Amino acid sequence: MAGKIRVTVWNEFRHEKTDKVVADVYPEGIHGQIASFLGAEEDIVTRTATLDEAEHGLTEEVLDETDVLIWWGHMAHGEVKDEIVDRVQKRILNGMGLIVLHSGHFSKIFRRMMGSNCSLKWREAGERERLWVVDPGHPIAAGLGEFFEIPHVEMYGELFDIPKPDATVFISWFQGGEVFRSGVAYHRGKGKVFYFRPGHETFPIYYQAEVQQVLKNAVRWAAPVAGPYTDLSRAPNYKANETFTVSE
Amino acid sequence: MAGKIRVTVWNEFRHEKTDKVVADVYPEGIHGQIASFLGAEEDIVTRTATLDEAEHGLTEEVLDETDVLIWWGHMAHGEVKDEIVDRVQKRILNGMGLIVLHSGHFSKIFRRMMGSNCSLKWREAGERERLWVVDPGHPIAAGLGEFFEIPHVEMYGELFDIPKPDATVFISWFQGGEVFRSGVAYHRGKGKVFYFRPGHETFPIYYQAEVQQVLKNAVRWAAPVAGPYTDLSRAPNYKANETFTVSE
Amino acid sequence: MAGKIRVTVWNEFRHEKTDKVVADVYPEGIHGQIASFLGAEEDIVTRTATLDEAEHGLTEEVLDETDVLIWWGHMAHGEVKDEIVDRVQKRILNGMGLIVLHSGHFSKIFRRMMGSNCSLKWREAGERERLWVVDPGHPIAAGLGEFFEIPHVEMYGELFDIPKPDATVFISWFQGGEVFRSGVAYHRGKGKVFYFRPGHETFPIYYQAEVQQVLKNAVRWAAPVAGPYTDLSRAPNYKANETFTVSE
Amino acid sequence: MAGKIRVTVWNEFRHEKTDKVVADVYPEGIHGQIASFLGAEEDIVTRTATLDEAEHGLTEEVLDETDVLIWWGHMAHGEVKDEIVDRVQKRILNGMGLIVLHSGHFSKIFRRMMGSNCSLKWREAGERERLWVVDPGHPIAAGLGEFFEIPHVEMYGELFDIPKPDATVFISWFQGGEVFRSGVAYHRGKGKVFYFRPGHETFPIYYQAEVQQVLKNAVRWAAPVAGPYTDLSRAPNYKANETFTVSE
Repeated sequence: MAGKIRVTVWNEFRHEKTDKVVADVYPEGIHGQIASFLGAEEDIVTRTATLDEAEHGLTEEVLDETDVLIWWGHMAHGEVKDEIVDRVQKRILNGMGLIVLHSGHFSKIFRRMMGSNCSLKWREAGERERLWVVDPGHPIAAGLGEFFEIPHVEMYGELFDIPKPDATVFISWFQGGEVFRSGVAYHRGKGKVFYFRPGHETFPIYYQAEVQQVLKNAVRWAAPVAGPYTDLSRAPNYKANETFTVSE
Repeated sequence: MAGKIRVTVWNEFRHEKTDKVVADVYPEGIHGQIASFLGAEEDIVTRTATLDEAEHGLTEEVLDETDVLIWWGHMAHGEVKDEIVDRVQKRILNGMGLIVLHSGHFSKIFRRMMGSNCSLKWREAGERERLWVVDPGHPIAAGLGEFFEIPHVEMYGELFDIPKPDATVFISWFQGGEVFRSGVAYHRGKGKVFYFRPGHETFPIYYQAEVQQVLKNAVRWAAPVAGPYTDLSRAPNYKANETFTVSE
Repeated sequence: MAGKIRVTVWNEFRHEKTDKVVADVYPEGIHGQIASFLGAEEDIVTRTATLDEAEHGLTEEVLDETDVLIWWGHMAHGEVKDEIVDRVQKRILNGMGLIVLHSGHFSKIFRRMMGSNCSLKWREAGERERLWVVDPGHPIAAGLGEFFEIPHVEMYGELFDIPKPDATVFISWFQGGEVFRSGVAYHRGKGKVFYFRPGHETFPIYYQAEVQQVLKNAVRWAAPVAGPYTDLSRAPNYKANETFTVSE
Repeated sequence: MAGKIRVTVWNEFRHEKTDKVVADVYPEGIHGQIASFLGAEEDIVTRTATLDEAEHGLTEEVLDETDVLIWWGHMAHGEVKDEIVDRVQKRILNGMGLIVLHSGHFSKIFRRMMGSNCSLKWREAGERERLWVVDPGHPIAAGLGEFFEIPHVEMYGELFDIPKPDATVFISWFQGGEVFRSGVAYHRGKGKVFYFRPGHETFPIYYQAEVQQVLKNAVRWAAPVAGPYTDLSRAPNYKANETFTVSE
């Protein structure tokens, strides 16, 4: 496992326990399905964590061993403890990647990282979505065609109240008349954040090849860089370099 | 006063009460000095608010009548109540401008809006700062030369842990060997945020003409635009336009 | 006229002379219609220039008196002389605003300013376009709703090969399955560039209120700022400030 | 060599032939030194090309086999033929990376890609430069400290007339009072462009470890991504997908 990217897939894991339709689509949970296809890659190793575990499964030890955290949440955002959100934010700013999926737009951690409401429009009509690649040189677009379609989705529409992305990789078209910035990338501190719209608890979206390709690309893009700075949380008092005299 | 930009200058207002040097430089408080030179402009009207007032002087009524909020804080960031931070953030996302000064980089509201630590290096050596204009077509640079200097400052140095700015207007040079992104602008929701580095409680920086020019420019840039969307905090369920049939 | 924004509306002015349908929609030329509704604004004064005039109507004198240049071209991009493109580029970098409309995406001056192909997909099917506002605090979005529609348009689709915009104000949805970044803004040198997709020689798009509102907003946004730097075309040898000794 | 990144190092190669000081520092030419340390990497293979070769050494065949082109020029920018600039630009937009060094800021290809003057201030005083990392999660910053210094350099100062970078990796401090955006990254079409300031014909800068590290990082970042779109130079007429009826 030396040198592999260590991914933790987090899921609130509630829908799958209470809704038979969801359980039928994702018998191992959404986290299980995502961990499964990512873990099949040679350079990736996965683990999972869920809301109802102690510390939501996100102990200091787990985060220390996580290069990229993937986040799925929907009905229980409010149950995530603020101290865990604090801990995850700190870890991102110190280099960990974060990939937020679909309804995770309203999770505490995504709103914390963005500083905005992250609100949007939505509609459940099983309509068609077409994701257009608008940054074809971006590594998250590797191996895709110029667009791909998902046949039946929940619609998310603009205005998506997010900061201006550092890179916009996908813009979606929906049958009913809306558009959406569906793949948006940010640098934050030493870490990276990617939001990816597709996903739904009752549509088999995480079984689709293009969606899996995007997530594999995103994991590789979000993995930490061996950059400078060991701790961004301090504001150090800093001496002038001895070679420079601070005087007129 | 019709049509004027309504500015509220907020100050934690502690240094001025406890430190004679500060009180001598800013006998009316830093907020008093800023409100004074801004209020002398024909198109601007000012009020002030301070930490020790009820609700820190930032009631719903005050915020509703504020187009641009200017924030000075230093030694008492932790005393600002989270509920007031929530309220200010919501008002910004709905259109109010926020201008954060100097040590306000570590204020709760700035860190909330940025989603990062906002940490930096610092040194008090009374050294010289030179602010270079690097976006000369930006309205916040109007009326300035290609750079301006402040003779004696506290140094702030990179890494400044902030999101990639939507616009970087100034980059500072310091005598002792550091650089700093000293004027950075962001769109957030319907509102705008500008961070401006210069300012110190014991140097007479807010009396300097160029600094005043920047703040006047920033107030005009940050004033709300009569844009669309009345409430960004909702995520509405949204019908497809009747002219589009959602079906294949 | 003192203090007004001086707009020059440029048109290649060919379609209107050879195609009766176009002439019926725009009897004064597309430039005439645009100059007319802009010139009705209190703070704007307009003139026009066309391809077949001497120096395409863009003499040094005309450009010196132009704050914002609006560009319409379609069938004769190749006839614009390179020396005039050089002149317009230089003027933009020294502060003039440029607004490029619709098929002007393939004009020499837009491709010069962008550095890329500026290619896109297109289809003439008279379909419906819906422009969503995705930067609601941007001054170019002032006075609009959260989206507006144009009933019959020529489709332009991604990938639009442009640099990452400094601001993306509008994203369009088209009936046939495409999306497009329809309003994109750039700072270049001391000047600004705005590309706006809507417009067609046979649809009455420049008579529509929302389209006119966008162009009025864009003119005000693109007007020069009284910024620093008088000539960006030089690379001056620069002495160290006498107060700084260049030595260790 | 399968799977290696194919780098072509281009040099106008004039200084080295006419100036003994330069020849002493770079006996194999600047291109020779850069090709040498890059080619020593396991995943990189290099070739060189120079101005006085046929087609400046940049034939269609050479460019077709080039993943990343590195550009050094200084005294003979004007001798580069426009048709070769056209060819290189087209290749970049179709995926090739371009890394422009130091005085290459005034090369035809860099100005073509930027759309602006790319002017700056300069001074030859052998002063000290300190490059601060301001985007620590960027892959081009991998393996560096929070800053690094070059003891003797030609100064380049702001305003650097370039478009707003997609990422600013380094900001330089100079002893004499200037700052400079020394490492700036852009996506253009399917390709990428990185400008890196350090380098001079009479200082041994390309022998310094940190400078070499940056160039290795930049080559890996700029290598083409297997993205969508085979030819960005066309503007295709595009049929609506048969599954969508274009009608109300």
